[in-house]
Amino acid sequence: MLRIGVIGYGYWGPNIVRNFTAANGSEVKMVCDMNQQTLKKVKKAYPQVSVTDNIDELIKNPEVDAVAIVTPVFTHHDLAKKALEAGKSVFLEKPFTYTVAEAEDLVELAAKKNLKLMVDHTFLYTGAVRKIRQLIDDNILGNLYYFDSVRVNLGLFQHDVNVIWDLAPHDISIMDYVIGEKPQAVVATGVGHFDRNLEDIAYLTFYYPDNVIAHINVNWLSPVKVRTTLIGGSKKMLVWNDLEPDEKIKIYDKGVNVKTKEGQYNLLVDYRSGDMWAPKVVQTEALKLMAEKFVDYVKNGGTAVNDGIAGLNNVRMLEAANKSINNKGEITYI
Amino acid sequence: MLRIGVIGYGYWGPNIVRNFTAANGSEVKMVCDMNQQTLKKVKKAYPQVSVTDNIDELIKNPEVDAVAIVTPVFTHHDLAKKALEAGKSVFLEKPFTYTVAEAEDLVELAAKKNLKLMVDHTFLYTGAVRKIRQLIDDNILGNLYYFDSVRVNLGLFQHDVNVIWDLAPHDISIMDYVIGEKPQAVVATGVGHFDRNLEDIAYLTFYYPDNVIAHINVNWLSPVKVRTTLIGGSKKMLVWNDLEPDEKIKIYDKGVNVKTKEGQYNLLVDYRSGDMWAPKVVQTEALKLMAEKFVDYVKNGGTAVNDGIAGLNNVRMLEAANKSINNKGEITYI
Amino acid sequence: MLRIGVIGYGYWGPNIVRNFTAANGSEVKMVCDMNQQTLKKVKKAYPQVSVTDNIDELIKNPEVDAVAIVTPVFTHHDLAKKALEAGKSVFLEKPFTYTVAEAEDLVELAAKKNLKLMVDHTFLYTGAVRKIRQLIDDNILGNLYYFDSVRVNLGLFQHDVNVIWDLAPHDISIMDYVIGEKPQAVVATGVGHFDRNLEDIAYLTFYYPDNVIAHINVNWLSPVKVRTTLIGGSKKMLVWNDLEPDEKIKIYDKGVNVKTKEGQYNLLVDYRSGDMWAPKVVQTEALKLMAEKFVDYVKNGGTAVNDGIAGLNNVRMLEAANKSINNKGEITYI
Amino acid sequence: MLRIGVIGYGYWGPNIVRNFTAANGSEVKMVCDMNQQTLKKVKKAYPQVSVTDNIDELIKNPEVDAVAIVTPVFTHHDLAKKALEAGKSVFLEKPFTYTVAEAEDLVELAAKKNLKLMVDHTFLYTGAVRKIRQLIDDNILGNLYYFDSVRVNLGLFQHDVNVIWDLAPHDISIMDYVIGEKPQAVVATGVGHFDRNLEDIAYLTFYYPDNVIAHINVNWLSPVKVRTTLIGGSKKMLVWNDLEPDEKIKIYDKGVNVKTKEGQYNLLVDYRSGDMWAPKVVQTEALKLMAEKFVDYVKNGGTAVNDGIAGLNNVRMLEAANKSINNKGEITYI
Repeated sequence: MLRIGVIGYGYWGPNIVRNFTAANGSEVKMVCDMNQQTLKKVKKAYPQVSVTDNIDELIKNPEVDAVAIVTPVFTHHDLAKKALEAGKSVFLEKPFTYTVAEAEDLVELAAKKNLKLMVDHTFLYTGAVRKIRQLIDDNILGNLYYFDSVRVNLGLFQHDVNVIWDLAPHDISIMDYVIGEKPQAVVATGVGHFDRNLEDIAYLTFYYPDNVIAHINVNWLSPVKVRTTLIGGSKKMLVWNDLEPDEKIKIYDKGVNVKTKEGQYNLLVDYRSGDMWAPKVVQTEALKLMAEKFVDYVKNGGTAVNDGIAGLNNVRMLEAANKSINNKGEITYI
Repeated sequence: MLRIGVIGYGYWGPNIVRNFTAANGSEVKMVCDMNQQTLKKVKKAYPQVSVTDNIDELIKNPEVDAVAIVTPVFTHHDLAKKALEAGKSVFLEKPFTYTVAEAEDLVELAAKKNLKLMVDHTFLYTGAVRKIRQLIDDNILGNLYYFDSVRVNLGLFQHDVNVIWDLAPHDISIMDYVIGEKPQAVVATGVGHFDRNLEDIAYLTFYYPDNVIAHINVNWLSPVKVRTTLIGGSKKMLVWNDLEPDEKIKIYDKGVNVKTKEGQYNLLVDYRSGDMWAPKVVQTEALKLMAEKFVDYVKNGGTAVNDGIAGLNNVRMLEAANKSINNKGEITYI
Repeated sequence: MLRIGVIGYGYWGPNIVRNFTAANGSEVKMVCDMNQQTLKKVKKAYPQVSVTDNIDELIKNPEVDAVAIVTPVFTHHDLAKKALEAGKSVFLEKPFTYTVAEAEDLVELAAKKNLKLMVDHTFLYTGAVRKIRQLIDDNILGNLYYFDSVRVNLGLFQHDVNVIWDLAPHDISIMDYVIGEKPQAVVATGVGHFDRNLEDIAYLTFYYPDNVIAHINVNWLSPVKVRTTLIGGSKKMLVWNDLEPDEKIKIYDKGVNVKTKEGQYNLLVDYRSGDMWAPKVVQTEALKLMAEKFVDYVKNGGTAVNDGIAGLNNVRMLEAANKSINNKGEITYI
Repeated sequence: MLRIGVIGYGYWGPNIVRNFTAANGSEVKMVCDMNQQTLKKVKKAYPQVSVTDNIDELIKNPEVDAVAIVTPVFTHHDLAKKALEAGKSVFLEKPFTYTVAEAEDLVELAAKKNLKLMVDHTFLYTGAVRKIRQLIDDNILGNLYYFDSVRVNLGLFQHDVNVIWDLAPHDISIMDYVIGEKPQAVVATGVGHFDRNLEDIAYLTFYYPDNVIAHINVNWLSPVKVRTTLIGGSKKMLVWNDLEPDEKIKIYDKGVNVKTKEGQYNLLVDYRSGDMWAPKVVQTEALKLMAEKFVDYVKNGGTAVNDGIAGLNNVRMLEAANKSINNKGEITYI
């Protein structure tokens, strides 16, 4: 039984506590939060869990085997460092850290201490993303052309980060996982309103080798919620609509063959349009699967798709995008 | 009765001929095309129309009062110039011309000759775009935050231009019309596949004064057809889905008030979420309305939202976007 | 070349004229209508077609090989009888006739005269209905459980018939074609508003052998247009949404196995839920295919899925449904 | 604090326990179930709740003020009677009872004992149904024409009742609440498969005064889940799609005026088609609201839209529908 201490019980913390409670092989031992009202809520819902407002008490608690950090991103590095130094593996809410330097520091420290880091890239544990990765691995889609993701809704505005740091970690983690290559550069544009110097709308374009392109549209000011990703390949194309209760992924036998190119007016383009197919997608709760993977990863080692390195890559892309947006779309190499 | 000569009877020409035939106040007198088979088709469908494969014969025909040019963009300037010089007002398929210099030349010549130019920005004559413009003029939406347009489908690949020149003239003309301001700069990204040096996917971000931003996503490699525009304002937000048979425009009483900002943790964001409303939108065929407007414009003067100046502005933005995409997203001032 | 005379150029007539003009092997020779304005419209659109307001002139015209009747249903029998007696094969708008007796009379007369009858059950020539029939023939769906069709919209109110006679001929012709069995009985309910003694809403249940059931929901007072049919089988189930531009048919690998039934509380129901699949459906215009089939049927004989017998069966079911609705849902054997 | 004893912790019981726990003014004191494993689950999730497999122990428990019965319908009457006789008010899962006679018996007994009965017609506590009722009360829809409800999905097959008794109590309770009149008669059709003599598909038509008609389509064998109700009125029409996350209700300014009716060919039908409007609908959990209403109703009296009389009416309509279906659609007066 891996005994988890959870720091932070705000918006997302309850989900983490619930899932480490429900997961096979883990239990939540202690929860830390600054807010006394919050701690009372924890106590009522989970009478068996200890609570504290003292971070050190949680981190040094000998009954806590590993620490989950579900606090604002600018606190991640320091809290995780403390936990690692106390000999505890760490699960971190996304984004992993606020800078690449912080991320590198944690990865290095964890390696030195032989401890594990995992970042909450939840989508990598959904049936939909797993299925997409498998379709690409099995070469069903053929050569990739593009990845185009839209993640827009009304709010939730964050205190400390712009919409890129809030929403794009999801898209970037998915893109990173399914494309399986590293982007070379990013161009990002966007603006903020409300005098906060924090963008509430942003558009990111990642350039990959071989003319693969990825685009991410994140927006806190949309009247409608959209969670749609288009992926185009030479053999098939797919649409993933995460808001569909069933049939989240639709695969289209559609494509283009540009046949002969001798002379401007002899362009022959052949459009292929066949069946559509929506494979059954596993619907198990991703957060629970991830909690169980964390237990296994801490106990038995091996690899995890959302380990510290994945978190570092994610932050690297976020940082580059942020640099580009600050420079009005200047291309930024990663 | 304004007697129209139409040059070009390829993909779009039949629609122009049909609508100048149906419109009140105009008739099609002559059609010119290089292809003899095409001319036979014209003759069969419209026995009363003369046909020719000689451009000069059409342009100099004294029974032709005005010329409609429905040919590839790189021919627009020369054909329109000829027509203007022959004293005929000109209707041009979009995009207006291939370069800003060409566009300026035509606008100047038309002014000198006191003739009219009109460019086929069809959407400006749809009930949906008119309604959006009216909602903005009436300050229903409040201060604009953004304009976000997606226009993707499978093909049709063009011989001579990339996806920006093919699809974005629509979005740019609509954006230009409804926002009612000029953008300051553009950042464009995109890639081509199929070894043609012509982008088949592109993303354009236009920066406007006062933190208004416009984004256009055009793609020839999408398995699904999407024609959706989101427009956010301080008072209301709207979604225009042009593929909906009814209820093309939905207006949401949704918004955000960022209230107090004293200190990072006292951010109070107030989300407003009320009724949605889909106003009745006029469904008359836009092309017919535009044909009738052309007649009126040529005969009686006045102003047209899609005159030569509008065409020039459109080309200016296309040219800037193209320059940016060639420079990997470098910001390009307009 | 089969030369067609068309009687009636109201709401649907123009489609019949257009398609017999476009079809390979046929041409429209003459159009008859009572309304002089209408005849002028015909003349303008089709200068080569003769027009008349005298039915006999059309029917007896030696240049007319076959007659298409596109008039209100209560005139069908008499007009068709005249045409048959003049030695002309007949194409009739649906519903075939207003009574079973009339339908039997026409079928008998055509047989005696060795002439052909065809009724405009257009849907039987669509790619969607053909695909559904093929899926059933190939036993992809397994044993049929039910057929459930919804055809509702705002209007068009008919002068002379209720919503059953207006809309249900479509559903009944499709049901008859794809199920491939004859129903034993019908129960119909419905009401009219507007003091016309004509139902504007109706619900029809057809009982087939082996517990197959078909239900049809027709309504002239719906704010939204729906054209959706569900078909359940033991192996697969399908949804046909005719308003979808693509993916009209979706086939679900879903089902139920009721396993053991020993005792009320040991019911084991096994739900199967697998992939969904939308086969490519041919999009050719059904009316043109049907026109060409009529030419072939008249010239070369053979069989047609929408021959006089199919029309008679359709009317038999309409008449039974009407009898049931008049008797407040009394079961009516067919 | 109203102390609740819950009998039955199967499919729906956990929701009842959770909501009487969360509701203001109530707590769950004891849970009774036959299954020891189930009782362990209760104990783990709610350590403070007593458990038993002895119904009398729960019903006679002096710490239990009121009893919630969440068991199969054929046990409802006897359990509720016991509870009433022990002086406890009773909350019952729908359907209220299995026969009208049982329902009448309970209503009479509760009245005699001055105790309360409430039946779980959950939908009456949703924002959507409340809004519809209000629209009708405020005469926004005008005179009602029809109510047309579709509730289909794959399973869940019940052990003891057909699809009418399982699904239609929802539609009937909603119809009863929003129409505000009593139906005069019902015609029901349907069939069963799987040799159980239990219908898995059924269609119900209720006749109301003034040509109002209500139709209910319930089906356990649908590949897709549908929860859609159309309501037509003389002034407005609405569509309620309960599966929409937002915009559950859409109100259409659409209608028909049948103007003059002098002679068959002078029918003038005027179609009105204006804006659509989706009012904001309250999203609070209905079950919690209902639990709190039960507390209030037991403690303070007054009226409840889902009292024993409502339950009795519901069962009366179910029984009549069942009688009609057994008689192949024979009209059954209520």
